[in-house]
Amino acid sequence: MKKWLVLVAGFFLLLLLRVQPVFSQDKDLIREANQYFKPLPEVMSAPEDNPATRAKLELGKMLYFEPRLSKSDTISCNSCHNLATGGVDNLPTSMGHLAQFGPRNAPTVLNAGLQIAQFWDGRAATLEDQAKGPILNPMEMAMPDVELVLSRLRTIPEYVELFKKAFPEDKEPLTYDNIAKVIAAFERTLLTPSRFDDFLKGKADALSSNEEKGLKLVIEKGCIACHNGVGVGGGMYQKFGVLGRYEYSDDQGRFHVTKNDQEKYFFKVPILRNVTRTSPYFHDGSIWDLKETVRIMGSLQLGKDLTRAEIDLIVEFLHSLEGRIPEEALRLPVLPASTPATPKPVFK
Amino acid sequence: MKKWLVLVAGFFLLLLLRVQPVFSQDKDLIREANQYFKPLPEVMSAPEDNPATRAKLELGKMLYFEPRLSKSDTISCNSCHNLATGGVDNLPTSMGHLAQFGPRNAPTVLNAGLQIAQFWDGRAATLEDQAKGPILNPMEMAMPDVELVLSRLRTIPEYVELFKKAFPEDKEPLTYDNIAKVIAAFERTLLTPSRFDDFLKGKADALSSNEEKGLKLVIEKGCIACHNGVGVGGGMYQKFGVLGRYEYSDDQGRFHVTKNDQEKYFFKVPILRNVTRTSPYFHDGSIWDLKETVRIMGSLQLGKDLTRAEIDLIVEFLHSLEGRIPEEALRLPVLPASTPATPKPVFK
Repeated sequence: MKKWLVLVAGFFLLLLLRVQPVFSQDKDLIREANQYFKPLPEVMSAPEDNPATRAKLELGKMLYFEPRLSKSDTISCNSCHNLATGGVDNLPTSMGHLAQFGPRNAPTVLNAGLQIAQFWDGRAATLEDQAKGPILNPMEMAMPDVELVLSRLRTIPEYVELFKKAFPEDKEPLTYDNIAKVIAAFERTLLTPSRFDDFLKGKADALSSNEEKGLKLVIEKGCIACHNGVGVGGGMYQKFGVLGRYEYSDDQGRFHVTKNDQEKYFFKVPILRNVTRTSPYFHDGSIWDLKETVRIMGSLQLGKDLTRAEIDLIVEFLHSLEGRIPEEALRLPVLPASTPATPKPVFK
Repeated sequence: MKKWLVLVAGFFLLLLLRVQPVFSQDKDLIREANQYFKPLPEVMSAPEDNPATRAKLELGKMLYFEPRLSKSDTISCNSCHNLATGGVDNLPTSMGHLAQFGPRNAPTVLNAGLQIAQFWDGRAATLEDQAKGPILNPMEMAMPDVELVLSRLRTIPEYVELFKKAFPEDKEPLTYDNIAKVIAAFERTLLTPSRFDDFLKGKADALSSNEEKGLKLVIEKGCIACHNGVGVGGGMYQKFGVLGRYEYSDDQGRFHVTKNDQEKYFFKVPILRNVTRTSPYFHDGSIWDLKETVRIMGSLQLGKDLTRAEIDLIVEFLHSLEGRIPEEALRLPVLPASTPATPKPVFK
């Protein structure tokens, strides 16, 4: 009986010796990671003048998928920010009106509302401001003016009703501002919690051993200087090409907005959540391979020649940022039919 | 007590007198309608060599929404047969590769598998045959060859796995034929039961009084000569312009397929289910207003000048054909990411 007890005690002692160090290492890494990153919130906070309501979210989703917001009736928000493909179109730059191509790569809509600002150059402060841009951009959805946008919707009785429900206190509920508000409200639901969030919250086995190694490299190599916070990026502007010139593009980024010489080649640091789904990379979409992207980042931003093995581990970690899109957002809305009064698509 | 009984009996007698005639008229109309139409089946029957399985349906839906089946990575089946908008794109003719426009209006994918054949001219016998057309059509998805289609998918490990699951007995599961098979299997789930089905099955109050009047007109005026059966159309070919020439198009329709002089200007009679959502109308998409469409049909096909009131009632009836798309079909799939080996989009 004593022998048996000793055996059992010995077994547990061995187990403890094996497990304890790993477990405490995990805990250390979780603690360290929480210094730089934050798990996604349950709900994205909304601006005071646009609180989320069910009526807004439903209408917002409809408009997000609404091709009649484009001149040709062929382009919706979802065309370039496709929820089926990481919230992007996986093109170097997006295809707009009559197959025109814009100058910059479409950033993901997923978690976009967590960012410091919208667009690569941060020229829109909020999701509301952003939503107003592409609809009227001649290279994108190409609506010639706000009036055409409004009359496309105003001639569809279901939309008139839905705007009334979404803005019960507004005298004129169907306005361009309110279109932007409901789209933004919908976009704020696009939080994509991932295994990395589980890890940050203390679930040590949420990341594989290689992913943890990748995370350590992201911290040690200094990626976290810019890619940090709740979005793992999206929180600041930074010069692209700190230690050398990016050879594929001469886009001066934020300088075009601020005209400040100090901000030449500055861009918003992109969110890395779901980055494994959003190729091609960089503001010009020149680089298709995420590993090559990480290599260029190490070289141009940190002055470090990352080894093949290091890059592989970092990319393994990035896979842990693949999140789950809310089911409700993935349910395709059924859009109301046009009426004979609805302005027709224009193909010129 | 006796007086009370008489009152009650009198009340019920009056009720009977009021209700009975209407009810029996309804029953007559239901009986008559069932001579020409059939409610949708619970499940669409599949060809022997392509029985539906869960694995096929899931993969099929992914490919239905897969823009990488097009040369430019921008066009999926859903681009022109959008489940959010009645299974069509609401354009006169669809926008294909680099904003080219084809010659004919996109027919709805909803209930399409119930038809005698696919395309306006019936040149594809099955949904499987149909699915193979647009992918390789230079005006549509514009893939230069089958090999590029296959290598786009073969380089994505998730797709390789899903094809294995969908075709566990095939030596080479990822083939062009199997791509068509899974897309067709998914499309067979797109049955859209409507209030008209409830009516056919005996629910007398499923149609409003005006809708019933419209239905009677559809029967009496002779529309049911062609628009009949389970699809309320889709079951035969017919000359467009039996009693006069359709002035907007010189497309000779089925003649291009059969080279049979007797079939000049013949087209497949379109399904009328969801027709209120699928403007513009006719094979060339020239007519946007459904009422004008009904007027032209009466005139050119039946030699009848329908009155404004008759047209209004017929269109009221057509609204009862608006169906419910299965929830499962409306859930947008999340598509797997490309790999560095995946052939890139081509914009020429």
